[in-house]
Amino acid sequence: MKHGGDLLSYEKHYDGQLIDFSSNINPMGIPKGLDKILIDNLDNLEVYPDIKYRKLKASISKYLGCEDDNVLVGNGSVDIIDSFTKMAKRILIMTPAFSEYKDRALVHEKEVVEIKYKEDFTIDILNMESLIEKDDLLILGNPNNPTGLRIEEDTLIEIYKIIQSKGGNLLLDEAFFEFVPQDYDSIEIFKKYNYENIGIIRAATKFFSLPGLRLGYGCTSLGLKEEIENIQMPWRINCFADFAGRFIFNQEDYIRKSKEYIEIERNYLFEELLKIDGIKPYKTHSNYILIKLLKWDEEDVFNFFLKKGIMIRKCSSFESLGNTHIRVAIKDRKNNMKLLKAFDSLLERRDLNEKD
Amino acid sequence: MKHGGDLLSYEKHYDGQLIDFSSNINPMGIPKGLDKILIDNLDNLEVYPDIKYRKLKASISKYLGCEDDNVLVGNGSVDIIDSFTKMAKRILIMTPAFSEYKDRALVHEKEVVEIKYKEDFTIDILNMESLIEKDDLLILGNPNNPTGLRIEEDTLIEIYKIIQSKGGNLLLDEAFFEFVPQDYDSIEIFKKYNYENIGIIRAATKFFSLPGLRLGYGCTSLGLKEEIENIQMPWRINCFADFAGRFIFNQEDYIRKSKEYIEIERNYLFEELLKIDGIKPYKTHSNYILIKLLKWDEEDVFNFFLKKGIMIRKCSSFESLGNTHIRVAIKDRKNNMKLLKAFDSLLERRDLNEKD
Repeated sequence: MKHGGDLLSYEKHYDGQLIDFSSNINPMGIPKGLDKILIDNLDNLEVYPDIKYRKLKASISKYLGCEDDNVLVGNGSVDIIDSFTKMAKRILIMTPAFSEYKDRALVHEKEVVEIKYKEDFTIDILNMESLIEKDDLLILGNPNNPTGLRIEEDTLIEIYKIIQSKGGNLLLDEAFFEFVPQDYDSIEIFKKYNYENIGIIRAATKFFSLPGLRLGYGCTSLGLKEEIENIQMPWRINCFADFAGRFIFNQEDYIRKSKEYIEIERNYLFEELLKIDGIKPYKTHSNYILIKLLKWDEEDVFNFFLKKGIMIRKCSSFESLGNTHIRVAIKDRKNNMKLLKAFDSLLERRDLNEKD
Repeated sequence: MKHGGDLLSYEKHYDGQLIDFSSNINPMGIPKGLDKILIDNLDNLEVYPDIKYRKLKASISKYLGCEDDNVLVGNGSVDIIDSFTKMAKRILIMTPAFSEYKDRALVHEKEVVEIKYKEDFTIDILNMESLIEKDDLLILGNPNNPTGLRIEEDTLIEIYKIIQSKGGNLLLDEAFFEFVPQDYDSIEIFKKYNYENIGIIRAATKFFSLPGLRLGYGCTSLGLKEEIENIQMPWRINCFADFAGRFIFNQEDYIRKSKEYIEIERNYLFEELLKIDGIKPYKTHSNYILIKLLKWDEEDVFNFFLKKGIMIRKCSSFESLGNTHIRVAIKDRKNNMKLLKAFDSLLERRDLNEKD
């Protein structure tokens, strides 16, 4: 299980519609009006997308608060991660992390240096500093997946300055940015540096509830942008992703309401999980919660939840987590309650087993 | 001008809707009923595409007449070309050819060997044989772009056997396959070889009039397929391309009618172009015609046609063609007549100029 969301592989194990807690998608669904935009633009199937994606980039730059010329677009965020990886000499990854960082590095036959987060999943800057060399690419999830933790602003700036002084590049994967409680905006912070030595990636996938669409985007320096566009494939974003991207970033109501909703459900689900025996939920800034299993292994819990119609994310495929962690998405109240109920049943089962 | 279809860059030069003769798309438009399929599946925006694309591959294998396990899918055919290129040691390209063969090779820092087609755009097999080495990838357009010429069946098998004996791979880019007058089907021919040392690429883009969708697919050996899937990006095809691909290949009526229509228009346009003074159209098996300009250069003709509301394809970006060739798509009768009329005006202008 390298990725969440693979319902098709497991649907045969449950007689009904599985509830997907394995992929971390905004439970509000797609922005209202997007369906009409896509239907109205079906004619665009018959023409090539703009090879320069000019209107799409204009929409993104307005949303991000940067210049059109700083904007990168990709077929999902992995596409942009792939390009940054291809350009680097070595890839430095903090673990646990999204598996594609390492996978794309290996595809491009790059040396990978894995650095462990500290016990509390924060960064040991001194250790990291000693490892960075010229032309390295350090990839950091911000917030990180699967831990859900945001890098503190001061720490981030400190890391950036280290990377810059060594002549490397920093890639911030901020695919979950909009879910984060208001803290700072890295696009704003690094503007004064003209995004030299840094790439900041975001995506429509998670926050706009569009994993089927494949639209990733990012912000970087003029130089890095040109290098990356020279290796990107033409027409890598199809007409639907192009037109959706001209629409969704203007949906201020949807954006505000989604943030408020996730905040409430995050607090609710986290507090309720804390009360459950046998698990330890980690504090999160995102729309998913990493959970340490104190009395079971991931396989056991995965299979038990599957029988209850719930698919969770096993975490042993994340480097350094072992087989005693799972990750659950934060969904709407009704489904979050179902998840909590399933944990209750798990506990009851354990009690029964103990009686055996 | 590296690619056709870039209307946005030129629309300001004409007060009205440009007619696009620069990209080679089926003039019948998208298959009837496809819009409904896409609208009915808008809900799939909210879930990840099947990471293995099982239903899409089943639809493609049925259409191609091969096994599901031989099918590759990509974000347009360039995505699959890119993967084959990445795996090879050297890339051999016959010129003139689609520019992405060389561009993707250079992105992956591969040595590129360019071999010229003969004067009549057929292949000099002896010369080619002398150049092929182990682990080379020879890429051939079949029919080739921009010449429109199909490789003769005997020649193709001969080339394949040479490649196989040398331990290289052959990549046939058959993106325009369905436009070709009935001759042979390479999927059928190479089945008995289990597609060892060969990849055959096709696409929804041209024949199904879907350049906005981005759906390429292909057929290769189990071994090559596994190698390529190991380097491909997850979810590289979005839900619309996935669902469209489950529908379009069953549209037998559309497929038959499109073939008949293109055959008629190809004969008509070619015969009419032959009658025009100052140009030499090359015989074609595809839905576009390469034209040699005997009295002008491409820039001159391009700009003249632009003023008439017609965008043609300049060909100097194709290796070895110089600046005296253009390529035009075969469109519907009404537009083909407009193209012919524009050539007439060009001739009249030339006469005027000569009087100066």
